[in-house]
Amino acid sequence: MLENLVILAPGLLGGSVAKSARAHGVARRVTLWARRPEVRLALRGQPWCDAVADTPEAAAAGASLVVVAAPVDKIVELVRAIAPHLPAGAIVTDVGSVKGEICRLGQAALAPRAHFVGSHPMAGSEKTGWEHAGAELFSKRACFVTPLPETDAAAAETVVKFWRDLGAEPVTVAPDAHDEIVAHISHLPQVLASALGAFLAQKNPAWRNFAGGGLRDTTRIAASDPQIWRAILEQNRDELLRALRQFQDELQAIQAALANRDWLEVTARLERAKVWRDGFRPLV
Amino acid sequence: MLENLVILAPGLLGGSVAKSARAHGVARRVTLWARRPEVRLALRGQPWCDAVADTPEAAAAGASLVVVAAPVDKIVELVRAIAPHLPAGAIVTDVGSVKGEICRLGQAALAPRAHFVGSHPMAGSEKTGWEHAGAELFSKRACFVTPLPETDAAAAETVVKFWRDLGAEPVTVAPDAHDEIVAHISHLPQVLASALGAFLAQKNPAWRNFAGGGLRDTTRIAASDPQIWRAILEQNRDELLRALRQFQDELQAIQAALANRDWLEVTARLERAKVWRDGFRPLV
Repeated sequence: MLENLVILAPGLLGGSVAKSARAHGVARRVTLWARRPEVRLALRGQPWCDAVADTPEAAAAGASLVVVAAPVDKIVELVRAIAPHLPAGAIVTDVGSVKGEICRLGQAALAPRAHFVGSHPMAGSEKTGWEHAGAELFSKRACFVTPLPETDAAAAETVVKFWRDLGAEPVTVAPDAHDEIVAHISHLPQVLASALGAFLAQKNPAWRNFAGGGLRDTTRIAASDPQIWRAILEQNRDELLRALRQFQDELQAIQAALANRDWLEVTARLERAKVWRDGFRPLV
Repeated sequence: MLENLVILAPGLLGGSVAKSARAHGVARRVTLWARRPEVRLALRGQPWCDAVADTPEAAAAGASLVVVAAPVDKIVELVRAIAPHLPAGAIVTDVGSVKGEICRLGQAALAPRAHFVGSHPMAGSEKTGWEHAGAELFSKRACFVTPLPETDAAAAETVVKFWRDLGAEPVTVAPDAHDEIVAHISHLPQVLASALGAFLAQKNPAWRNFAGGGLRDTTRIAASDPQIWRAILEQNRDELLRALRQFQDELQAIQAALANRDWLEVTARLERAKVWRDGFRPLV
């Protein structure tokens, strides 16, 4: 059991880490810090919060494990701020959607006295804010843990165990491999959902009133926070552009088959997609 | 109340029409016909089925309202088959996802003795078959009713009332206007979901094991039946190609903004999509 779990900047994900840690008995003490005073005040009243610190530095002082739950463009500055205040041997992780830069800079900020091990749970929502947090958000969800070659193996193992204790299914990969994967399975889908929404908004927004389940589901994540996503797309721009260009080849191929009335080719591509989608493991 | 509601070729949609008609007390009698003998046998045992006919012609003989629930490429042949057997003044509708050609040929097959009025409920599932049918499938869902200028107004009104009685929200539009709308809000999302699935299947299918909710939702409909969708895309090919080309302009614009690191432009498009998506009416 962790002695003192510290969560910085809890939103949907950080709040869920706190709730889940309490529900699963993962930490003796859960300490939070939030940037806005009114959030700190509200957090003080939550049963899954043992202490609220007034600064990230104060929160870090007695930490066993720190989870930095800030947006991707704020993570490194928080890691740098708390670095001198961490106990020796403390471990810092995050929940950011891009890992390469964050892991390299996090490692540089902490080593050798403390350890940075990146994380990225594949859980979330188009909703934001700790008010939407849930103790089972990570249950059965993949969670990437992304040590660098020089990362302390015991620290990485602690982070893997932490996510497993919250109900997630940890997957260890290198930060850059992670960024290639999520460019395809998360950032590309986000861009497609947003592009579809932006297109239909210009075409005729009233048509959304006729939406069936297909349009609802394919565009649900278009309601996500634009600022959070701008920061993610910015940090993973190169991998995303590569994925986007390759996806457009697929889209062009389907378009060409439609234009040529090549129904065998159209059906083959629909079939390939169905086989792939049918292979998803069920969400229990 | 309808005297005899006849449903031909009940799958997910036709079965749901039957269940819903029974649940909402819309018809005194519900008669079904299915192509396969084993399905006819199974339907005989269902509480929402009063009679099963051995042929579509026999089913049509005493019909007040016929719902042709076959795939879009089989609808017109069924309408032509039953035409000589319908009572004078009977009304025939369908649940096909494309309306222009079906409505013109349906009208030509039946007029002036009986009436064809096209329908398209915006409800469904990636699952198929009457076993997945549900009495509340149409509840609060838009349902297009697509009379031609020459369609009998009273017949169109009967079809509108029918869908309203099943809990749907009928929307009357011309068949060609319908086809433009669904090219954008249904067929384009289907093609995008399938293209994304086909692309990721080739890239690395194992990545699907890491899927978060975003990838799950954006690709759910990629599991739809390829044959059903081939027929829909074939009938609405021209409108779909137009929508697809215009969508690609939006996608190219986002790609260009990413490539140029024009984060204001990226954010503006994410924001436009969010405002559009936030405007969806809630599904109660």
